[in-house]
Amino acid sequence: MTTIIDGRQLARELNAKTQQRVAQLAQRGITPGLAVIIVGTDPASSIYVRNKHKKAGQLGIRSVVRTFSPTVSQTELLAAVAEYNADPTIDGILVQSPLPAGLDERAVFDAIAPEKDVDGFHPLNTGKLFGNLPGPYPVSCTPQGIMTMLKSLHQPLAGKRAVVVGRSNIVGRPMAALLLNANLVVTVAHRYAQDLRALTKTADVLVVATGITHLIKAADVKPGAIVIDVGMDRDAQGKLTGDVDFDAVSPVAGAITPVPGGVGPMTIATLMQQTVDLCEWREQRGNN
Amino acid sequence: MTTIIDGRQLARELNAKTQQRVAQLAQRGITPGLAVIIVGTDPASSIYVRNKHKKAGQLGIRSVVRTFSPTVSQTELLAAVAEYNADPTIDGILVQSPLPAGLDERAVFDAIAPEKDVDGFHPLNTGKLFGNLPGPYPVSCTPQGIMTMLKSLHQPLAGKRAVVVGRSNIVGRPMAALLLNANLVVTVAHRYAQDLRALTKTADVLVVATGITHLIKAADVKPGAIVIDVGMDRDAQGKLTGDVDFDAVSPVAGAITPVPGGVGPMTIATLMQQTVDLCEWREQRGNN
Repeated sequence: MTTIIDGRQLARELNAKTQQRVAQLAQRGITPGLAVIIVGTDPASSIYVRNKHKKAGQLGIRSVVRTFSPTVSQTELLAAVAEYNADPTIDGILVQSPLPAGLDERAVFDAIAPEKDVDGFHPLNTGKLFGNLPGPYPVSCTPQGIMTMLKSLHQPLAGKRAVVVGRSNIVGRPMAALLLNANLVVTVAHRYAQDLRALTKTADVLVVATGITHLIKAADVKPGAIVIDVGMDRDAQGKLTGDVDFDAVSPVAGAITPVPGGVGPMTIATLMQQTVDLCEWREQRGNN
Repeated sequence: MTTIIDGRQLARELNAKTQQRVAQLAQRGITPGLAVIIVGTDPASSIYVRNKHKKAGQLGIRSVVRTFSPTVSQTELLAAVAEYNADPTIDGILVQSPLPAGLDERAVFDAIAPEKDVDGFHPLNTGKLFGNLPGPYPVSCTPQGIMTMLKSLHQPLAGKRAVVVGRSNIVGRPMAALLLNANLVVTVAHRYAQDLRALTKTADVLVVATGITHLIKAADVKPGAIVIDVGMDRDAQGKLTGDVDFDAVSPVAGAITPVPGGVGPMTIATLMQQTVDLCEWREQRGNN
């Protein structure tokens, strides 16, 4: 019997907890604040930002969206980041990726104060994650949300084999670090892999984040494996689908995330959770 | 025919290059400076520090060793680090690990200015490595030295399978990041692995850093694999040996490092190389 990991339901549960935490902060006169910077009018980015803004509002998080024209200079962008870094009402700062060509995205990410880095992209935060150093520090929201999904299965994972396909800084690499820190034996595969399918077949936990529609077929999956699909792809009919051929793989897998309704909703719920984390950590440090 | 990777010879070659770079800097009136802080009288640590000091002197690097009694306070230690951070004659700062119990080693490492972090332990530097961000930045010397050894074999490595056994912050984790950044498919294994021997047998490049004497036997190695032994263990007779059973494994391996005379000499040569790197990078930034 395959478990379909219901990202929408898990996100609802996580959001309910976040909302409670926001209410507790409100009793002490504190409102978590999230600043979102978006440059240009890319439709996908605009939808993501709108969804984040809306969800923050629903949970009681104060969200500020600042939209820049695509012709904004690097200097103006850095000035906006510096302003939010100094703003005591802002706990988390997020710069929507990708930035238009000509802007140095990495320099903008690195300018975000590490303690307000709600996306967990700053190298000081990724360095702590990579070294499994004592926290707290923010972690990239997609892999962090996947860890929450894995925990919801209540299966012992230490010593199991995880294979992460894809090595981006947003998903693959922090995912590998989180799984390693949870004592799984972790393999990171990518486009250079000479025997990708033999490798994915050894995974007890398979995380796929490649952007290649239906890359993973039934024969590539170990029977009973937990399969996490980070893909947000469009099929030939323009319908949203994943990197895993869900219909073919789900009879083989022990547990699997659908697309849509899997990793996506958990990413945004984790972003909200982490905004409140940052607010609470800040308060604990006595900076409020 | 198995290649024995001669760490002593490779270290001599690397040291010769480092010495040349020091001579070129000297022509412009610049002397790279290395500060080594050691606490207590642990015999192994004392030998390591003496060897580093001696090698630096041979290459023309100015080396300063500061020895503290085991009763030194955390505050005094942090003050010494702060002093070297501010000292324009010091390019690299190294705190010999382990520190005696009661001292917070991580806080001391983190206090080293990232641009003087010659051991590459600061999370800002490990975060850059982990994200394969554009450099330059220092990297932990043992895995960096191993990459130099791998390059000396002139074999294409992209897409090959690497297995790293051990996940310390000094060796295993940065080793995995370097191999991943070099486009190998990388697995990190550790004490929780349920099928370690099946896993090591799949490795084209096997790096072993566990401290378990002769953990790896002939049957655990893929014929023709490159085997890198980071172990510095003592056998029953007190003789220095490695995590790999060299006599048994070397007929199977394509290339293998001996212990002693493998990774050890390359680590110290890489430390010298990186001290000069830090000096040159600093000069390029105009801070000299």
